[in-house]
Amino acid sequence: MTGLPNYTYRILARDLDFTGRASLMSLCRYIFNTASKDAENNGFGTRELHNNNATWVISRMSFEMYATLREFDEFYINTWVNEISRLMTTRNLLLCDPEGKTLGAAVTQWAMIDVDSRTPMDLRENMNYSKAARFDIPCPINKPVKIIPGKESDPVLERKVVYSDLDFNRHVNSVKYLEWMLDMLPLENIINNGFSRLDMNYLREALYDDRLLLSYQQEDNHHLFDIKRKDETPVCRARIQWE
Amino acid sequence: MTGLPNYTYRILARDLDFTGRASLMSLCRYIFNTASKDAENNGFGTRELHNNNATWVISRMSFEMYATLREFDEFYINTWVNEISRLMTTRNLLLCDPEGKTLGAAVTQWAMIDVDSRTPMDLRENMNYSKAARFDIPCPINKPVKIIPGKESDPVLERKVVYSDLDFNRHVNSVKYLEWMLDMLPLENIINNGFSRLDMNYLREALYDDRLLLSYQQEDNHHLFDIKRKDETPVCRARIQWE
Repeated sequence: MTGLPNYTYRILARDLDFTGRASLMSLCRYIFNTASKDAENNGFGTRELHNNNATWVISRMSFEMYATLREFDEFYINTWVNEISRLMTTRNLLLCDPEGKTLGAAVTQWAMIDVDSRTPMDLRENMNYSKAARFDIPCPINKPVKIIPGKESDPVLERKVVYSDLDFNRHVNSVKYLEWMLDMLPLENIINNGFSRLDMNYLREALYDDRLLLSYQQEDNHHLFDIKRKDETPVCRARIQWE
Repeated sequence: MTGLPNYTYRILARDLDFTGRASLMSLCRYIFNTASKDAENNGFGTRELHNNNATWVISRMSFEMYATLREFDEFYINTWVNEISRLMTTRNLLLCDPEGKTLGAAVTQWAMIDVDSRTPMDLRENMNYSKAARFDIPCPINKPVKIIPGKESDPVLERKVVYSDLDFNRHVNSVKYLEWMLDMLPLENIINNGFSRLDMNYLREALYDDRLLLSYQQEDNHHLFDIKRKDETPVCRARIQWE
């Protein structure tokens, strides 16, 4: 979209899954990377926030794709912030092919937390951060929905948080949850079903050595995923809609 | 090094582990990405090989680092092929800071296999592939050593190969083994010990749903890792030397 910051990428071999298509995880990594780069370019990246003992954590995300990307495919991402409330800021992202055709879109909602206390900070006191990144353009797709877990289902998997799950924020990286969720599904699901839409709710941080219970349910053409601690505290929920 | 192809990078947030340093996995991903890009630029990338129903698989790798990289750090990688035998080609990589100071180096050895039969192809019949990438410059560090597993040790972990472990070659991605190995170590190990050198031996492909047994042993200031199938077929071995 004209006037918006523009970040260009090219799908690499490392982004592909075994079907030769850019995986959902790799696309989400491009989205998060763009969010982080644009925050940095506008003076409110993690480096600047760390001076204030603060960091960004993602709270919710919605993501839709209308095309399949393969190795060497070029695309760009436009991004803008359009809403800032007390506890949440909304960043939008539009994925386009080099000719400007929309390939997909995402809405991400972020909180700023204190690094030590892990409690949210008041964004109204930090609004000047986002002035240059803010555009009065509506979200390109429906905002992330609140995921209500369906009927009780047995945990499919128990897993302990390990070293490679953690990112610089010292908690499980946001893309890891998605990886765990897709890994639970039968492989045919990923081969045969085209991805349509993802909604993610990040509810609590998971830390090193946490024991997590993972489960999922299928309803019509979508899956609901639930990740919680062994004491039942919800950690992350998601809904994946297939074509 | 003057005259050699040069690929520039910048450490991103996604490359960091919880200590804020670029993880060993992310550095290996830059190395493999450079190898793949340079092969592509010289006409023997995976795209060209696929026309011939062939692909590259890594057989061995050695990697040393002399510095720590953090977010926003810029570096470049020089790369060249210097040896081609019947079954193996050697690609070298030198990591440098923007001033040309050596940060680290890697030696990687690759085989070309037939995509369907998974058997190695004769590189002498395909030597013209590598002409432009070949330089008469010795390996920058000792070549990868053959890893001899130490005294029998109990498997620390059993794991099933899942969707996100696989890459476009339809087998477990080379960096995944390293991730699994580091995940087995006590976290203090990664915090307190500076990385010095990695040797990897890729012995067999691991495929979807394979059940693998993982174990490791400590000897002086290095760890030996062993990954095998449940029927004892060796899959991947490694040695990590700490400072």
